[in-house]
Amino acid sequence: MIGRLIVDSKCDVVYADDLVVGGKFALGSYTVTEQEVVEFAGQWDPQSFHIDRDFADDGYFGGLIASGVHTIAVCQRLSASTLYEGWSVIAGKRMRDVNFLRPVRPGDVLTGNLVVEDVVPDDRGRALVTVAAEILNGSGKQVLTSVTEMYMRCRPETD
Amino acid sequence: MIGRLIVDSKCDVVYADDLVVGGKFALGSYTVTEQEVVEFAGQWDPQSFHIDRDFADDGYFGGLIASGVHTIAVCQRLSASTLYEGWSVIAGKRMRDVNFLRPVRPGDVLTGNLVVEDVVPDDRGRALVTVAAEILNGSGKQVLTSVTEMYMRCRPETD
Repeated sequence: MIGRLIVDSKCDVVYADDLVVGGKFALGSYTVTEQEVVEFAGQWDPQSFHIDRDFADDGYFGGLIASGVHTIAVCQRLSASTLYEGWSVIAGKRMRDVNFLRPVRPGDVLTGNLVVEDVVPDDRGRALVTVAAEILNGSGKQVLTSVTEMYMRCRPETD
Repeated sequence: MIGRLIVDSKCDVVYADDLVVGGKFALGSYTVTEQEVVEFAGQWDPQSFHIDRDFADDGYFGGLIASGVHTIAVCQRLSASTLYEGWSVIAGKRMRDVNFLRPVRPGDVLTGNLVVEDVVPDDRGRALVTVAAEILNGSGKQVLTSVTEMYMRCRPETD
């Protein structure tokens, strides 16, 4: 069911109306480096198990692990660069059930997919679109799952 | 109720046992610049309303707004640098109810606070700690609320 998207060929913007509930999209891949793990966490999540290799080697996970916020950021980058750049997104409203299921480690090659769970139009020309994402490591195991609600534009009636 | 934290003065690490449910902590402040909004989103959330000023000026919000992931990152930075660096955090387990309540714009000075909602020890020397954070803009209005569950170490019995 990958890519169950119906797009008006006359228009290269994907409106909420174009999304099909149950539609599933592959998100490409992203390689997480040790340098990026340390730099991201140094700026946004300065805890020893993210930024201090010696501390982390002796610690709970036996090595550095990426900040959960870093993993969320990778998920968003993959979603935006693969999909949202062409979608008529207005803004995110909510994330719920963001689960950090396994550690993300330097060298991990992350992939993922995104499923459209719901599309609810309102009377302001928008729709609240719910998408569920999963991010997998190189072993195909889930490292992150999340559900995001965002507002998108519906197709203008004059289109 | 700011700072309802009981810490053993002999030890500078805050264990799960030291946290009091209902304890509330101020998170300091963080100024979001236009350069950072554009750079963060350029890397992690490349959508026009985050990275293209001209597009954004004519768009839904009348100007650039920060990526929601950027706002989550600011919340985590404030939480980690103010609190978690001294807490015995093992890792995050889950975020839920992450609400993007108002746009974050360049120049916004964000502050916030964090409340300990629950501390549930397990039989492995850990506890699942639930914290609720709110991030406010310069007008004192909520821009982000979130609930995070994370594992922390309990105080070792030999301490």
